[in-house]
Amino acid sequence: RTLRAGKLTERVLKLFIATGKDEVFSLIQALNIQVTVTPVLPTRALRPDLTSFMNEWRTIFSRFHLIIVKDPDLKEELKIPEGFNLDVYKKPDIDRVVGTSTSTIFSGYSCRYFGYLVSRKKYIISVDDDCYPAKDNKGILVDAVAQHITNLTTPATPFFFNTLYDPFTEGADFVRGYPFSLRSGVQCALSCGLWLNLADYDAPTQALKPEERNSRYVDAVLTVPARTLMPISGINIAFNREVIGPALLPSLRLGGEGKFRWETMEDIWSGMCVKVVCDHLGHGVKTGMPYVWRNDRGDAIASLRKEWEGVKLMEEVVPFFQSVRLSREAKTTEDCVAEVANVVKEQLGSKDPMFARAAKAMVDWVKLWKSVGSSTSSPGA
Amino acid sequence: RTLRAGKLTERVLKLFIATGKDEVFSLIQALNIQVTVTPVLPTRALRPDLTSFMNEWRTIFSRFHLIIVKDPDLKEELKIPEGFNLDVYKKPDIDRVVGTSTSTIFSGYSCRYFGYLVSRKKYIISVDDDCYPAKDNKGILVDAVAQHITNLTTPATPFFFNTLYDPFTEGADFVRGYPFSLRSGVQCALSCGLWLNLADYDAPTQALKPEERNSRYVDAVLTVPARTLMPISGINIAFNREVIGPALLPSLRLGGEGKFRWETMEDIWSGMCVKVVCDHLGHGVKTGMPYVWRNDRGDAIASLRKEWEGVKLMEEVVPFFQSVRLSREAKTTEDCVAEVANVVKEQLGSKDPMFARAAKAMVDWVKLWKSVGSSTSSPGA
Repeated sequence: RTLRAGKLTERVLKLFIATGKDEVFSLIQALNIQVTVTPVLPTRALRPDLTSFMNEWRTIFSRFHLIIVKDPDLKEELKIPEGFNLDVYKKPDIDRVVGTSTSTIFSGYSCRYFGYLVSRKKYIISVDDDCYPAKDNKGILVDAVAQHITNLTTPATPFFFNTLYDPFTEGADFVRGYPFSLRSGVQCALSCGLWLNLADYDAPTQALKPEERNSRYVDAVLTVPARTLMPISGINIAFNREVIGPALLPSLRLGGEGKFRWETMEDIWSGMCVKVVCDHLGHGVKTGMPYVWRNDRGDAIASLRKEWEGVKLMEEVVPFFQSVRLSREAKTTEDCVAEVANVVKEQLGSKDPMFARAAKAMVDWVKLWKSVGSSTSSPGA
Repeated sequence: RTLRAGKLTERVLKLFIATGKDEVFSLIQALNIQVTVTPVLPTRALRPDLTSFMNEWRTIFSRFHLIIVKDPDLKEELKIPEGFNLDVYKKPDIDRVVGTSTSTIFSGYSCRYFGYLVSRKKYIISVDDDCYPAKDNKGILVDAVAQHITNLTTPATPFFFNTLYDPFTEGADFVRGYPFSLRSGVQCALSCGLWLNLADYDAPTQALKPEERNSRYVDAVLTVPARTLMPISGINIAFNREVIGPALLPSLRLGGEGKFRWETMEDIWSGMCVKVVCDHLGHGVKTGMPYVWRNDRGDAIASLRKEWEGVKLMEEVVPFFQSVRLSREAKTTEDCVAEVANVVKEQLGSKDPMFARAAKAMVDWVKLWKSVGSSTSSPGA
């Protein structure tokens, strides 16, 4: 894989020193095989009319099978234009697969997780329905799916930082001083994309700067180093379901959770969990491109009262996740999630019932993943 | 400082919640004072004719006092154009300040460290003499000094990763989920710039891709997370001399060290040392912009034999520095360097005499820094 991307490994370097560069070039070319991928796109629907959303994404999404999960709280019928290969999952489908008592975990932004649960594809890409395709610095439409897949199918390098960012990006490489033994990298399990126009700020920041828009297109992807935590947004992400699927889960729900992104923390919590699991299992997490153009709006001032709870929360959550160390016995993603849930219950459970509920939801999710994940299902049957 | 940059701290957030945004804006504006800075630019000279180098940098460098250190191995006289405020240090100056037995540590690329030693300014910026000012994505000349100073005078955020990169960059901020208690950040001690055109690759990589040029201008600065190591290049860096000065030092010299950048490792070694010290003392290290346009050339294939030594070296050096933990007693940069030197001697000294020599050079450097650093000196007296 390292070779396929035209990078030197230690073994090849020795060969190279021994034989000269032409042979290495031939070897690299021989290995340069296209990777075949089939991503799935679960798309949450808060607003029933998906016409303009789907049409904006048509050239990109029409190549793939899509999963659309309708927020179970949404009463109106979805409007979806023709010409896509998709499955739509609505409340009756969710009830049928997980039971009516469990289906509440998929309300609001968390409906995406139902798509993750029922997908059978290796790579999942999730884009919120208030996001349109972005344009790059040169005005060219960004194929977010292609970029996410590139991120997921090239190695990640979490153990040493490369100052020229992702060494597997075209035109980049490892800089002087980067150990050759680390150049093979590790499997990338998660790719976190970014947002132009409206960034994913919290309500206070957005309220302070109501006119602020993100116009900075940073032409880079990078591996977030091992043991470094980050706030992972669910707005625009992709992951290898087979590797890390069960760690993306709906578990933390704020008391005053609302229908704007800054009134939720489920993705941030899930993201901390994923990162801890990836660090433990030796997988990589990348961030940066692709960008999407984000249009969501809301009254940030009005959201402040609710958001304050989520904002304070991170003061407990970050030091907690920074301190979590999993045992050697935790060898699968499911094991790891279960262990994290135990530590959440022990260390945070008494501080706020919200954490105790999150711990239970994590344990339940692993069970659900095992049972539903191994069965087949189709919507609207 | 956080407020001055228009970011919210926890305290201000509470105020904000209580009073509304107008008051916070006024507060921020009241605090918006210009920071006065006087950087110093030590510039190594391998090639005697600095005319085109200095002229290319004229609009930027002519505003500052410059230090030029002539490589003591260079026999020819330097050619420097008129119109700059500068001091040139040559072999006799170096001998006079540190003694003839010590002056050998400043040969080749290491001559820069003499400039660091004799400067009395708070911020030092160092640019290799094969680098010209770069242009940004819009074709505008990059003021590398201004960008480095911005990096050094705004806080760094090493304890949690911000997905929109440096939150103190104009138009950016902390994203949803970033703990407010960490938004004040810490002092930034070191700013590592990048290179367009010829990147700072090792000889094998450059030999494998002789035509590769870096044309990717990544419009970002980011804090390298705490406990994450990186290969710090000396080609284009800036630092706060008062905070971290003694940790930038000439100590590791390869047996076959040459006069091309990829035949040296002194800056990489020094960089690992600086990062460990910054992590221990709670300072930040940033990387990214500013870029310089790098023109250095050389026969990479011919350098491979020498470089192989430096390349293998990192396989020992990286795990070593990743494992170094300094004691609570190490409270100053000088203390920290001395402790690192001790551990180098103990753990690496027996593996290769080069490491034992590096450890001794580090101890000697701290002594030199204390003696010369507290005296005054002027060149060519």
